[in-house]
Amino acid sequence: MQQTRDRAIGILDSGVGGLTVAREVMRQLPRETIYYVGDTKRCPYGPRSKEEVRKFTMGIVRFLMNHPIKAILIACNTATAAALDLVREQVDIPVLGVIDPGARAAIKATKNKTIGVIGTQGTIQSGAYEQALRKIHPDLTIHSLACPAFVPLVESGYRHTALADDIVADTLSPLRNTSMDTLILGCTHYPLLADSIRKAVSESVSIISSAEETAVELSTILQHQQLLSDQHSPKHRFFTTGSTESFSKIAEDWFGFPVKVEQVELYFPSVG
Amino acid sequence: MQQTRDRAIGILDSGVGGLTVAREVMRQLPRETIYYVGDTKRCPYGPRSKEEVRKFTMGIVRFLMNHPIKAILIACNTATAAALDLVREQVDIPVLGVIDPGARAAIKATKNKTIGVIGTQGTIQSGAYEQALRKIHPDLTIHSLACPAFVPLVESGYRHTALADDIVADTLSPLRNTSMDTLILGCTHYPLLADSIRKAVSESVSIISSAEETAVELSTILQHQQLLSDQHSPKHRFFTTGSTESFSKIAEDWFGFPVKVEQVELYFPSVG
Repeated sequence: MQQTRDRAIGILDSGVGGLTVAREVMRQLPRETIYYVGDTKRCPYGPRSKEEVRKFTMGIVRFLMNHPIKAILIACNTATAAALDLVREQVDIPVLGVIDPGARAAIKATKNKTIGVIGTQGTIQSGAYEQALRKIHPDLTIHSLACPAFVPLVESGYRHTALADDIVADTLSPLRNTSMDTLILGCTHYPLLADSIRKAVSESVSIISSAEETAVELSTILQHQQLLSDQHSPKHRFFTTGSTESFSKIAEDWFGFPVKVEQVELYFPSVG
Repeated sequence: MQQTRDRAIGILDSGVGGLTVAREVMRQLPRETIYYVGDTKRCPYGPRSKEEVRKFTMGIVRFLMNHPIKAILIACNTATAAALDLVREQVDIPVLGVIDPGARAAIKATKNKTIGVIGTQGTIQSGAYEQALRKIHPDLTIHSLACPAFVPLVESGYRHTALADDIVADTLSPLRNTSMDTLILGCTHYPLLADSIRKAVSESVSIISSAEETAVELSTILQHQQLLSDQHSPKHRFFTTGSTESFSKIAEDWFGFPVKVEQVELYFPSVG
């Protein structure tokens, strides 16, 4: 019988963005198994209503709960903002989002207490980062900016082009006149645009990837709950609701090794 | 009646070293109240037997448990290595040490999987960092070095001197021929020597302060247990078993504001 600690981490995202979190989990927690679901068919989540995002997120959670998992990681800022509380109510295993870890890392990094946040429309409009930041630290200046073009840019495979540099620089121009010393990439797709983002902001700005920080937080929670795996060769699985071909192409480019992708259909009973 | 979440964080150390953790908790979690105990009278813990360190640590824990606290932070690597498990068994509130957060941050930071660890004799001999690192990541090269001169250097107030630079450079010389790209300051006193340490190692080495990382981990655990405070002006308290005068001098130098220090006697019933 499988020990609870040898079960997988269920990672979910609207598409391929959560692969940045998956890669960090593999790097920082190489003993852990990952079951990843990308809802590419319904991507992007950013412009959708909160209700719709909650419904889709719960559909993926139900799929994951039919597999041997010990924790859920919502590797999508939009879904975290809309549905983290709901998922926590519905399952009895640890559930992590990507917003609090990024907020915590930004608070650690900032010296002048001025923080920039970029994300999808859904994430920025929800005010989830402002809330997460101020809950912990009451005295911060926060500049938020929605970057609706970034996710399509990544999902369509244009991330290594000059076009990407131009769109990123243009989109981020409103942040250039602020005194932010720390910038949160408030969307898990954005680390895939890290080179373009680095060029577009001042060198002195600390760039916070929620991917890296969420892997640290996962490590912390697993350890405090005595759920760290001691396996040696975990067997990951990747699922997408869309094209397995374009998903595996982006995944292989990002991971640097071959990735077998399985296609799934999700079902969405109505949720509260 | 006080809410659990408005209770203090109990921080304990063998002396003033844990003030580096206290300062990071104040900076990253400015809504939290701190009750700090420095066992200066019995400092340093580094060269003492495990049994003795466990006895002293439990003495401080008993003192703290008579105050309104919601979590205990063992801000001393030697005490964490010797007594973290024991304290966790004895109290029913969250207990954090400084070793796992530093290990996690080093795993995040390293690119070549080669990590240096410096600490007291007690910490290095215990192998606690190697164990913490390998538990999470099986495939690391680790170089450990005991630096017995560093704690007395800090506690005696010599940290800003040329003598400090010389002693630090000389002590760290065995690490200079390794390929470590990350160095864990495995003693909470060592951030007080950060300038000297920075000069003694290659610029490309990432220096990990367990102080900063432990504050992040405290934030994580408090949030996942719904114990984050929402107070605005926490009233910290500082206790020492030794001279209040030399303690407050070092504390004020490190914090940059006046610190009232109370003297306490601790009692040590025998422990298992």
